[in-house]
Amino acid sequence: MSDSALFGPDNLPYGLFSTPDRPGHRRLGVRFGDDVLDLGAAAAAFGSAHADVLGAPSLNPLLAAGRAVWQAVRGEVRDWLTDEAHRETAARHLLPLSGVQLHLPFEVADYVDFYASEHHATNVGRIFRPDGDALTPNWKHLPIGYHGRAGTVVVSGTPVVRPQGQRKPPNEPLPVFGPSRRLDIEAEVGFVVGAPSELGRPVGLDGFRDHVFGVTLLNDWSARDLQAWEYVPLGPFLGKSFATSVSPWITPLDALDAARVAPPERDFPLLPYLDDSAEQVEPGGLDLRITVELNGHVIAEPPFATMYWTAAQQLAHMTVNGASLRTGDLYASGTVSGPEHKQRGSLLELTWGGREPLALPEGERAFLEDGDEVVLSAWAPGPGGGRIGMGEVRGRVEPSA
Amino acid sequence: MSDSALFGPDNLPYGLFSTPDRPGHRRLGVRFGDDVLDLGAAAAAFGSAHADVLGAPSLNPLLAAGRAVWQAVRGEVRDWLTDEAHRETAARHLLPLSGVQLHLPFEVADYVDFYASEHHATNVGRIFRPDGDALTPNWKHLPIGYHGRAGTVVVSGTPVVRPQGQRKPPNEPLPVFGPSRRLDIEAEVGFVVGAPSELGRPVGLDGFRDHVFGVTLLNDWSARDLQAWEYVPLGPFLGKSFATSVSPWITPLDALDAARVAPPERDFPLLPYLDDSAEQVEPGGLDLRITVELNGHVIAEPPFATMYWTAAQQLAHMTVNGASLRTGDLYASGTVSGPEHKQRGSLLELTWGGREPLALPEGERAFLEDGDEVVLSAWAPGPGGGRIGMGEVRGRVEPSA
Repeated sequence: MSDSALFGPDNLPYGLFSTPDRPGHRRLGVRFGDDVLDLGAAAAAFGSAHADVLGAPSLNPLLAAGRAVWQAVRGEVRDWLTDEAHRETAARHLLPLSGVQLHLPFEVADYVDFYASEHHATNVGRIFRPDGDALTPNWKHLPIGYHGRAGTVVVSGTPVVRPQGQRKPPNEPLPVFGPSRRLDIEAEVGFVVGAPSELGRPVGLDGFRDHVFGVTLLNDWSARDLQAWEYVPLGPFLGKSFATSVSPWITPLDALDAARVAPPERDFPLLPYLDDSAEQVEPGGLDLRITVELNGHVIAEPPFATMYWTAAQQLAHMTVNGASLRTGDLYASGTVSGPEHKQRGSLLELTWGGREPLALPEGERAFLEDGDEVVLSAWAPGPGGGRIGMGEVRGRVEPSA
Repeated sequence: MSDSALFGPDNLPYGLFSTPDRPGHRRLGVRFGDDVLDLGAAAAAFGSAHADVLGAPSLNPLLAAGRAVWQAVRGEVRDWLTDEAHRETAARHLLPLSGVQLHLPFEVADYVDFYASEHHATNVGRIFRPDGDALTPNWKHLPIGYHGRAGTVVVSGTPVVRPQGQRKPPNEPLPVFGPSRRLDIEAEVGFVVGAPSELGRPVGLDGFRDHVFGVTLLNDWSARDLQAWEYVPLGPFLGKSFATSVSPWITPLDALDAARVAPPERDFPLLPYLDDSAEQVEPGGLDLRITVELNGHVIAEPPFATMYWTAAQQLAHMTVNGASLRTGDLYASGTVSGPEHKQRGSLLELTWGGREPLALPEGERAFLEDGDEVVLSAWAPGPGGGRIGMGEVRGRVEPSA
């Protein structure tokens, strides 16, 4: 299936772009096939009631506008691009994707990273704590998560400089300093919060669609050696905070209705605020098929449908203590890994802690080398047997400065 | 010493205020004694070259302007308030502090919380892991820290709603849900980043004064029961993310020159990026004397000068992996505890995990009850034997919703 067919009228993801003649002029766009619709210009041409938010230099005003506006704008844009009466006008505001520069489409408020794949958590537990239980006792009772660094969320294509830091070689008495030797990826799915919530007011499972605008792919670059030395007792910090790459295209939740699936069966009864087993709760899983490429070779195909905890449960958990949501909050699923070897979303798991390197044509890979390029892509079932493509996340490793 | 004398011409902290007649009109102010100088109005009256940043509805433009502007503005303001030729004009823009509403003075970008007091970390280790080493092996080699929730940083006076969440009673097979029963405080000092840094470029120890604008007191409210159940393996999350209170007044670093002291002697040689033992490095410690009051009774007096890791080391560590700084980044010291019982900055430590409650006139306190009010205040030595007061941090506990 061509790239173009993955971005048809049932998809319509949002991004932020500029053109080489006006590099400082950032504009909202919607991807349509291999083109970008200049949203502000189109909204003005069609006299849209939402021309103000669509003419903004960031997605944040549209995010903040709330679900009714999201639905109205999505309907309008689809109409402009597909209705015979509008197509000629719309075509005047389509630019070839190949000629634009894409930017981080929204200002990230808080960034939270979860740990929601049972297969990933089990693999990591076995690798790091071979003598203990693979899963911690809390794992099946709450979606474990932590806050990450919002200021280093970068758009696809941004080079990733190999981080330096402390690591503790097992046979040396003191830590040493230098470039990370175990630089890794984590293939994840991110959720972008649009409508804010009040401090002190939890958002329930049924608030998911009112607050979450859309979905992005996310690569949570990880320096395993820095992380291993630093993370007890307060969690990951510098091993993760140097860069987190996201797709330039935010896929609206409404484009993923056909991809809704039931999550895996739960092994323990859940507390009421997390219990999505009731019939009236819509399925919380999403059937996204992710592909991880390293230097052009497919090294993994993690299935998002296997995630134990859903994005709606993560939202409910994140706010159950009264923490408020802001427009632009981003929360990620944690590494997506399925039950099979080829479905693991990190090199840590694919190479079992580096002990079983991948054989690539250019040589073995336990962890990333300078110059390596990683690309995440994904698609989901769309209406009528079609497919919804997600914007890819691309990043190349540069040597430490 | 009166409150007024703590806020003399050598202090001049910055805040954001509004008046009852124009509640939506937020203006920058400088505290002077028991008054607030309306900075925008004064800058206009005196024809300041910095009238634009001083007329902004947030401290962020001044933060972003960098150290040369911080110093110039501080000199100007001091001049306006103390020079005979200017005092009459300045007086026209002074408002009584009692008549204004104070707001969160800056937009928080990323929030990081460290764990830099050896006494605190040792106490917590002994309480939670009585059979293990009190300090983890990494503790004396790097300043341990983690990202917290920036969106729930609130200004002094904001009520704190008791968080609900999961806790795991030791003798029950499953976690239970409800209001936290072990709500605690953490008396901390926060550092506010002004000038940003580039992704991929670490900020060294000598970059501290160029990047950090000022200091605030901070109460890192903590639900110990939620935290104990959730924090392995990825660190604190909901146990901390419901509220973090800061002072309405940001004390400029330049006001604390007389409070600079050498940090405690280090037990291990430090890696070069953290090594502040060289003679040309200015002393990284700060002699801030903190007072913690619970319902009007002094329950602790934590000495900030005892902190093992300095704010300059924390900044160098936080960026050594290439993570960038943004204007408005806030990082906190972690709980300040001294070697003596009365110097412990949390109820967890003061009551040794709740086992030795405090005797207050209104009854025993292991952890906070609904209606309890906590106030943090502090002062530091100023030039010529004077004192520099820090803005207090006040918060009252409200029952769960």
